[in-house]
Amino acid sequence: MMRPSTLSRLAFAALYLAPVALAARADEGMWLINRPPLEQMKAKYGFEATPEWLEHVQRSCVRVSTGGSGSIVSADGLVMTNHHVASDILEKLSSKERNLLETGFYAKTAAEEQKCPDLHLDVLWKIDDVTERVEGAAKGLATAEAGAARRKAQTQIEDEAKQASGMHCEVVTLYQGGRYHLYQYKRFDDVRLVFAPEQQIAFYGGDNDNFEFPRYDLDCTFFRIYENGAPLVAEHFLRWSRAGTQDGDMVFVAGHPGSTQRLNSVAHLEYLRDVAVPFVLGRLMRNEVWLQTFSGKSAEHARIARGDLFSAQNSRKVYVGRLAGLLDPKVLEKKSSEEAQLRAAVDANPEWKAKWGDAWSKIAQAEASAAAMYKRYSAIGSGALNLGTDTFAFAKDIVRLADEKSKPSGERLREYGDAGLEALLDAIYSPAPLYPEFETYRLESALSFMAETLGANDAIVIAALGGKSPRARAEECVRGTKLFDIAERKRLVEGGKAAVDASNDPLLQLVKVLDPHSRQMRKKWEDEVQSVERESYAKIAAAKFAVQGESVYPDATFTLRLSYGAIKGYSQNDALVAPYTDISGLFQKAQERPAEAAYALPPSWKGARDAVALKTPFNFVSTNDIIGGNSGSPVINRAGEVVGLIFDGNIQSLVGNYVYSEEQARSVSVDARGMLEALKSVYKAERVVQELEKSTTAR
Amino acid sequence: MMRPSTLSRLAFAALYLAPVALAARADEGMWLINRPPLEQMKAKYGFEATPEWLEHVQRSCVRVSTGGSGSIVSADGLVMTNHHVASDILEKLSSKERNLLETGFYAKTAAEEQKCPDLHLDVLWKIDDVTERVEGAAKGLATAEAGAARRKAQTQIEDEAKQASGMHCEVVTLYQGGRYHLYQYKRFDDVRLVFAPEQQIAFYGGDNDNFEFPRYDLDCTFFRIYENGAPLVAEHFLRWSRAGTQDGDMVFVAGHPGSTQRLNSVAHLEYLRDVAVPFVLGRLMRNEVWLQTFSGKSAEHARIARGDLFSAQNSRKVYVGRLAGLLDPKVLEKKSSEEAQLRAAVDANPEWKAKWGDAWSKIAQAEASAAAMYKRYSAIGSGALNLGTDTFAFAKDIVRLADEKSKPSGERLREYGDAGLEALLDAIYSPAPLYPEFETYRLESALSFMAETLGANDAIVIAALGGKSPRARAEECVRGTKLFDIAERKRLVEGGKAAVDASNDPLLQLVKVLDPHSRQMRKKWEDEVQSVERESYAKIAAAKFAVQGESVYPDATFTLRLSYGAIKGYSQNDALVAPYTDISGLFQKAQERPAEAAYALPPSWKGARDAVALKTPFNFVSTNDIIGGNSGSPVINRAGEVVGLIFDGNIQSLVGNYVYSEEQARSVSVDARGMLEALKSVYKAERVVQELEKSTTAR
Repeated sequence: MMRPSTLSRLAFAALYLAPVALAARADEGMWLINRPPLEQMKAKYGFEATPEWLEHVQRSCVRVSTGGSGSIVSADGLVMTNHHVASDILEKLSSKERNLLETGFYAKTAAEEQKCPDLHLDVLWKIDDVTERVEGAAKGLATAEAGAARRKAQTQIEDEAKQASGMHCEVVTLYQGGRYHLYQYKRFDDVRLVFAPEQQIAFYGGDNDNFEFPRYDLDCTFFRIYENGAPLVAEHFLRWSRAGTQDGDMVFVAGHPGSTQRLNSVAHLEYLRDVAVPFVLGRLMRNEVWLQTFSGKSAEHARIARGDLFSAQNSRKVYVGRLAGLLDPKVLEKKSSEEAQLRAAVDANPEWKAKWGDAWSKIAQAEASAAAMYKRYSAIGSGALNLGTDTFAFAKDIVRLADEKSKPSGERLREYGDAGLEALLDAIYSPAPLYPEFETYRLESALSFMAETLGANDAIVIAALGGKSPRARAEECVRGTKLFDIAERKRLVEGGKAAVDASNDPLLQLVKVLDPHSRQMRKKWEDEVQSVERESYAKIAAAKFAVQGESVYPDATFTLRLSYGAIKGYSQNDALVAPYTDISGLFQKAQERPAEAAYALPPSWKGARDAVALKTPFNFVSTNDIIGGNSGSPVINRAGEVVGLIFDGNIQSLVGNYVYSEEQARSVSVDARGMLEALKSVYKAERVVQELEKSTTAR
Repeated sequence: MMRPSTLSRLAFAALYLAPVALAARADEGMWLINRPPLEQMKAKYGFEATPEWLEHVQRSCVRVSTGGSGSIVSADGLVMTNHHVASDILEKLSSKERNLLETGFYAKTAAEEQKCPDLHLDVLWKIDDVTERVEGAAKGLATAEAGAARRKAQTQIEDEAKQASGMHCEVVTLYQGGRYHLYQYKRFDDVRLVFAPEQQIAFYGGDNDNFEFPRYDLDCTFFRIYENGAPLVAEHFLRWSRAGTQDGDMVFVAGHPGSTQRLNSVAHLEYLRDVAVPFVLGRLMRNEVWLQTFSGKSAEHARIARGDLFSAQNSRKVYVGRLAGLLDPKVLEKKSSEEAQLRAAVDANPEWKAKWGDAWSKIAQAEASAAAMYKRYSAIGSGALNLGTDTFAFAKDIVRLADEKSKPSGERLREYGDAGLEALLDAIYSPAPLYPEFETYRLESALSFMAETLGANDAIVIAALGGKSPRARAEECVRGTKLFDIAERKRLVEGGKAAVDASNDPLLQLVKVLDPHSRQMRKKWEDEVQSVERESYAKIAAAKFAVQGESVYPDATFTLRLSYGAIKGYSQNDALVAPYTDISGLFQKAQERPAEAAYALPPSWKGARDAVALKTPFNFVSTNDIIGGNSGSPVINRAGEVVGLIFDGNIQSLVGNYVYSEEQARSVSVDARGMLEALKSVYKAERVVQELEKSTTAR
């Protein structure tokens, strides 16, 4: 599934580098929406994107706070995304008695649309280049101080913009320091659930078929945005295509790819290959086994852990693919030769050499520092102090907020700046259900991982465990904490530092033990790794612009990007894989593998075989260049209409973090026609069907 | 399941330390059969073991070459062991068309009894103390040379004894160097399958219920020993108890516990806690996920990988338990205080201090060396050069044997000494089925693990991968090798070094790349870790004998041990767990968890509900002190009759590697009455039933 992997969301900063890109060939590129590849699209497909077309697409797309993409698809604010992007929310709306992941959901009337906890959608409204101001703040300062000055400037720009526009504001680092753009979003936090199928059909084939093709997944969910208690009157939305696509058609994907490392320096890629990626992969596999063990205890345990388990498995597959890419000598050889070429061009020009020539060795130094501290930094929850449990996260935010709030916004840890405060409080006051047994289990896992990684004689481990085993310490913390109670969280936030200092809540105590260490390592990481990378990649970016011109795309940063391509099959094991599957293939697959739970049909589909048009296209592949975070992105035709819904890439696309290849790598979508047919004939979801048909362009 | 964990079988030498034991309390102890705890048994249970009783038990027990225990239970050589000890063999007797793990097996006639590939059973016939000769060989030598001299003496003693008696001979290191005993075994390698139930009932509850209680597992299999083509006329065998047991009865377990580290020094335990155990655990979880991924591809893939997967899961549970024990401060505190006491006693006596006082710091040094090389050593397959695939193992044995055979037996790598040659050749010429896709997958996994652990720029990784990705290299090796063919293996073994040198078989080439490095590290490990440990633990053993007297048991070494105890429930989460389950509980469990595959009943049992006596005891727990390797051990009453069959320990027993506790730790057995009832009423296995009933003592 194309969502950002679990652990990358846990602030593994080192995986988030986005240096400057080479000139794109083939259908390569996750392009800035305000800097689209106009010439390439025109040359290859004869398509001319107008400013209106681009703005319309931009303002019809949404970023989903659970870590994915989506789009507005009706005048009344109906939003389409993936089921696996929505599944966190579906889980939070579920209970032991009512399991929406198992049963699916359809609001037969407007009144039945379910308000979603912890969900907000962002629509990108405005982009400004603020590079000069950010770089100006750092001018003449030494590396570490320059890094701090840049972070401070970013926060100030965000705060000022938010004050002025009221919008949600983020200064985005592009080309890993080559450019800084201010993104202003309309943020919607009254979002309601309209329709979701059963997870069994949304994720048909399970972990086994994840990142494979042919596929038969109805991986969609529909929400609706509300404003002032009523459905949004959408200024922009994508119309539903009546005609659909055929093999070879040009299509676009507009969404929020999470992160790529396409143009990391070779030393940086080697660090990822030899240190970060194997470590993260090991941790993901460990999480997977821990979560499976928990899930085996009962059906209810399985329900509670399902989201975490799927996420761990999905990320594990992603990282297996990444590692395989990094261990493929062809990939690193390509990178090495490109880097050698660029360096040769820089070295050949004395002025360039003086300005930029040291960038690569500086990055190599930064990666050596990163390698030296990576395991320790990860083991304590990194700079975000994330131990993977909800109640510990509340405790951490409460303690940190109490410390940070007294400082000026620009001097706080970035995530506690004024611009993000509202969202932070929403998260702390989340009404989503919590499960003490699961909290204990995950905290035990995190504490044990700390001991496994650092050794039990390590001072921070001794302090965290407080003379107890990981299990006993986790039990003590979860049994003793009052943070299950929203009112208590509120009391502590509002009481500020005095209330936090006075509390003997064991989870707050645990945070207080770990926090100084996490902050200290975060500073070291920012100074010795991140700031050096920023500075050096800015030089490399400048060199690239000078040598190769400006027509390059930055690495993915979970911000809006446009990708273009075509619907196209590929060859695998000497056989051709056709670009489309149809609904009849789903029934055939279920028949072929009757004994496996992953291939069972949910009752709704079992009963619908005769009612459904079997020849309707169901899933398809296209050459679009996407990556985790693109999940839920609309696939759009030249007319700007929805023809599909991105939900995955094939296994050959997983190397896409480092290189794009049009040969076999494909993105995988639900066909809009298959979705509509399912809504009609399987689910009888009349309200949604009518709304989508109304949205269809009359032609 | 109580079998030695996968990775410990892969020669993780560091986990195999068996220092001297403290005086036993409670029902503690895995006692040498020639040094039983006569006084304790008499004092606590009023039981007096006669020499005849002990010899009879000794010669009725068997060690199973797949890594478990068993016993002869009829005059015609019928052998009882666990299904999970036999499952390797059942897998080898299976094919895509005939899956014995799924269907079970019953030989209705003698002619139908199935000859088992790769299986031999050892009956311990004779024990001699050879400490003086082994230590004599090392006298006056420096540590590393002394270690080599001891290993050479061990091999010589084995070779001589084999020559004299024709039996299979092993010099066993006890008290980790405190004593050396020569064990002579009758080895039987014509072993045939008589009866096995379906794995579904043998391993009922699956990974989820593994190491839990209450349980409902029919974890048994019956083989028959043949000699000269006819059933063995057994000199010794255990009779089947007619009466069975009741709560509180004294029972014995005679079997082959694999390894414990009960009396490792504290520094040694800390090394295990902080380095070895977390690393092995991470690797086990990684294997588990890799194997699950393979298994998901199809039912046939699942069948092929099933044994490896179960084994990885079982070992993972064991290691989770071990790590939890090591991370429980109470355990290490107990060890520290015991060690401090002994050291104080040694230091108080000038003569003792001079002789033994440096042992603990020497071990600490050895563990520091071990920690420094452990990951690299493991990543390359350790000294045994084990990459976890069958064809690579053939290649390794062929290459090493060609090199070793020209040396005198005592100077070879220990496993290529004359005494073990026959068994080695049997393994190389194994007719068991091989699966190219699985070989490729496991080799890819091992090569990738090497790169993940050492980094792709490491010289040995570069050499092993030969400029290819792990996947491509594994494909190349497996596609190109001729070692799937037994005749080719024979040709290479018989052709010796010349044939091996002339071959360009890619698997032989891969071995040749890795072998020098593995040998070099093995020497370093033997010299800097193992030899220092041997010498130092011998000192500690001497100190313990001096301070505490000689009535102590050595740590487990996969040799025959006797444990005594009683049938007894325990308390868990403030509730009492009764010592017995009965057959009705099995049907109840199946009813309670209808949706989970692990709790489905096989068809034989579904249909037998009315035929079977539901109140028959099925599984029970007792206080006997056992550990992995004890799987398949008979549980015996005072009369020397079979009353049960060990197959597991509860979760509280997993800390037993380091400490025994009578409070909650229990061994778990199939009740002999449950077995007989199932054979009678579910399987109608008349031949076996009659044989067991005939074996019953008339009383």
